[in-house]
Amino acid sequence: MTANETFMKEALSLASKGRGFTASNPLVGAVCVKDGQITGRGFHEKYGSHHAEVNAINDAGKNALGSDLYVTLEPCNHHGKTPPCTEKILESGIKRVFCAMEDPNPGVNGGGNEFLRSRGIVVKTGLLEKEAIALNLPFIKYITQKKPYTILKLAMTLDGRIATRTGDSKWITNSKSRLWSHNLRHQCDAVLVGRGTVEADDPSLTARIEGKTASEPLRIIADSRLSLYGMKNLKIFSEKMKSKTMTACCKSAPDERKSEFEKMGVDIIELPENKNSMVDMKSLLSKLGKMGISSLMIEGGSAIAGSFLNNGLVDQIAFFYGPEIIACSKSYSGVSGDGPEKLADAVKIKNIKTLLFDNDVLVQGRVSGSFFHNSGLLWPVFY
Amino acid sequence: MTANETFMKEALSLASKGRGFTASNPLVGAVCVKDGQITGRGFHEKYGSHHAEVNAINDAGKNALGSDLYVTLEPCNHHGKTPPCTEKILESGIKRVFCAMEDPNPGVNGGGNEFLRSRGIVVKTGLLEKEAIALNLPFIKYITQKKPYTILKLAMTLDGRIATRTGDSKWITNSKSRLWSHNLRHQCDAVLVGRGTVEADDPSLTARIEGKTASEPLRIIADSRLSLYGMKNLKIFSEKMKSKTMTACCKSAPDERKSEFEKMGVDIIELPENKNSMVDMKSLLSKLGKMGISSLMIEGGSAIAGSFLNNGLVDQIAFFYGPEIIACSKSYSGVSGDGPEKLADAVKIKNIKTLLFDNDVLVQGRVSGSFFHNSGLLWPVFY
Repeated sequence: MTANETFMKEALSLASKGRGFTASNPLVGAVCVKDGQITGRGFHEKYGSHHAEVNAINDAGKNALGSDLYVTLEPCNHHGKTPPCTEKILESGIKRVFCAMEDPNPGVNGGGNEFLRSRGIVVKTGLLEKEAIALNLPFIKYITQKKPYTILKLAMTLDGRIATRTGDSKWITNSKSRLWSHNLRHQCDAVLVGRGTVEADDPSLTARIEGKTASEPLRIIADSRLSLYGMKNLKIFSEKMKSKTMTACCKSAPDERKSEFEKMGVDIIELPENKNSMVDMKSLLSKLGKMGISSLMIEGGSAIAGSFLNNGLVDQIAFFYGPEIIACSKSYSGVSGDGPEKLADAVKIKNIKTLLFDNDVLVQGRVSGSFFHNSGLLWPVFY
Repeated sequence: MTANETFMKEALSLASKGRGFTASNPLVGAVCVKDGQITGRGFHEKYGSHHAEVNAINDAGKNALGSDLYVTLEPCNHHGKTPPCTEKILESGIKRVFCAMEDPNPGVNGGGNEFLRSRGIVVKTGLLEKEAIALNLPFIKYITQKKPYTILKLAMTLDGRIATRTGDSKWITNSKSRLWSHNLRHQCDAVLVGRGTVEADDPSLTARIEGKTASEPLRIIADSRLSLYGMKNLKIFSEKMKSKTMTACCKSAPDERKSEFEKMGVDIIELPENKNSMVDMKSLLSKLGKMGISSLMIEGGSAIAGSFLNNGLVDQIAFFYGPEIIACSKSYSGVSGDGPEKLADAVKIKNIKTLLFDNDVLVQGRVSGSFFHNSGLLWPVFY
């Protein structure tokens, strides 16, 4: 690894510390370097707070003068929640800027770097670009397509089942696998489950990570006909949790149930329905994009999984296989749906990677034809 | 690695060359070593031919005098197809014998080594014992339990399916995975498939490995009611193949169908039936053991897989997951059966290992409670 790469790697590592807290902003990290030494470090810590460049320059103090700045994303050149980073860079006396990737925002692309160059700063882009893109796949999809990056996470037995014929499903995977899943929840802006899963498991859908403050993703329940109306005792509808719970239903759901949800103080998202009279998931994604959701973790059940897959709406999969075989024709499958007649028309997965958590196997991969699938990248990247 | 281990490793590597050809004898390899140099190499090449020790000693020629012999299994001390190896060792002037494991045959255990010691030869056992056991798991089960070691091999999509709702299944896995499977077939004494698989795919069930002479495993078709009677056009019943094909049926199968099989020249194995009026697989394994079959590769379909699993008859699994998701409720599952009510009662897999063949995932593991499962060993071991 060159010295340049080492510094950018450090910036990427810093960037990743913001995971779970920056949406719908990107993860960004930066270091100031003078005479081969890092003199300042910074990252974008949470949405609305200082950008990484500003934090790194402030950390460097007067050492910023004449130094190099390594930043994982092109510095912004516009007034948002904070003033433009380009101005801060100019003021600080930074001499050269190395950035891993250009701003993917179609309206901004090249703007920050161009401005810096026009003011005599040397700007180099593309250093560890692939790693920087991987870190921000959801942001890049969101900013270019106004839709969240989607990860379908399932936990199945080795024969593809999620529960025995009596519905027993605890636990297919072990605590290490579940911790990984909680880490993924923490990094996603929203999680989605179907009504059936809520009724069967009464999940809280929070990210619980011992020894770490985790972000709380928005919980979205797909409940086409609002069958959960009035079920105040469900955890996700409790006083403490309901402000971050939303129910997605069909426009045609009964009005009296809509009123029930209003009374419970739980927001609903009304959407068109598909040919099976269920919530149209494509419309849901558009709606979530408009709400600023850049990443969505889909946690099942099987009908939701099938609906997303069969409509080409999944970007990435994270399938856990616990070390059991149920071997029962009447047990529950992990994925249901209308599927294709021909195997050639099945959803194809590429860039498959495996991880072992003791005897649990995690298979991750990108859905062929999905956003940026040719990059060969998986998200999230753990530094 | 010590020098001793290096020599034993070489012997193990030689032993593995006999794969597919020695059953129901074990795989054995041996080297003669004098002054730190290997002077002779040998392995048991095929059933009925010279044992490894004899081949190594012959290869060493007069250098055998005063040398050490490294052999992966305790030398035999009885007249079988060939004279006892212990005598050959004595005649050759070998001074010391290192053997990896003792003879697991309950009637023979310790006999060869004891005899050698009584004649003044220094004998040390246990060098790379685990590796030697792994190499011969099927032989060890066969010799101690008179039943074949069983490997259930399935190829499924990531959602646990083996065909679309129309039955389309070609190809779920890629050519590298299929080559691995052919290598496994080559190493197994017999392969088993159900009638449905034969009707759907008309498989030849041979081991086809480019550039290599593969052994031809015995093909066993589970056809409880002999529904395949008269189907002479199936590959496995062809003139060329039928001598190594057997059909396992229930005793209660119609007599006229039994006669049809007789006319076709295909042997049948008549067995008791289970509560679903299907061939009782436990009886099948006992029968195969009596026939000298030490390893059985079970290749499905789903009912066969479920029957073996639900009756605790599988020693090891090799599940391939191709990079597709069928997402169809009406598609075919990889494993069917009566399964348990509670997840705690499901078949448990341990010692899970994964391999990637491009985008195909192979998951191997040992069935909890099966033969020698506490050893943590998987078979076959590839040297």
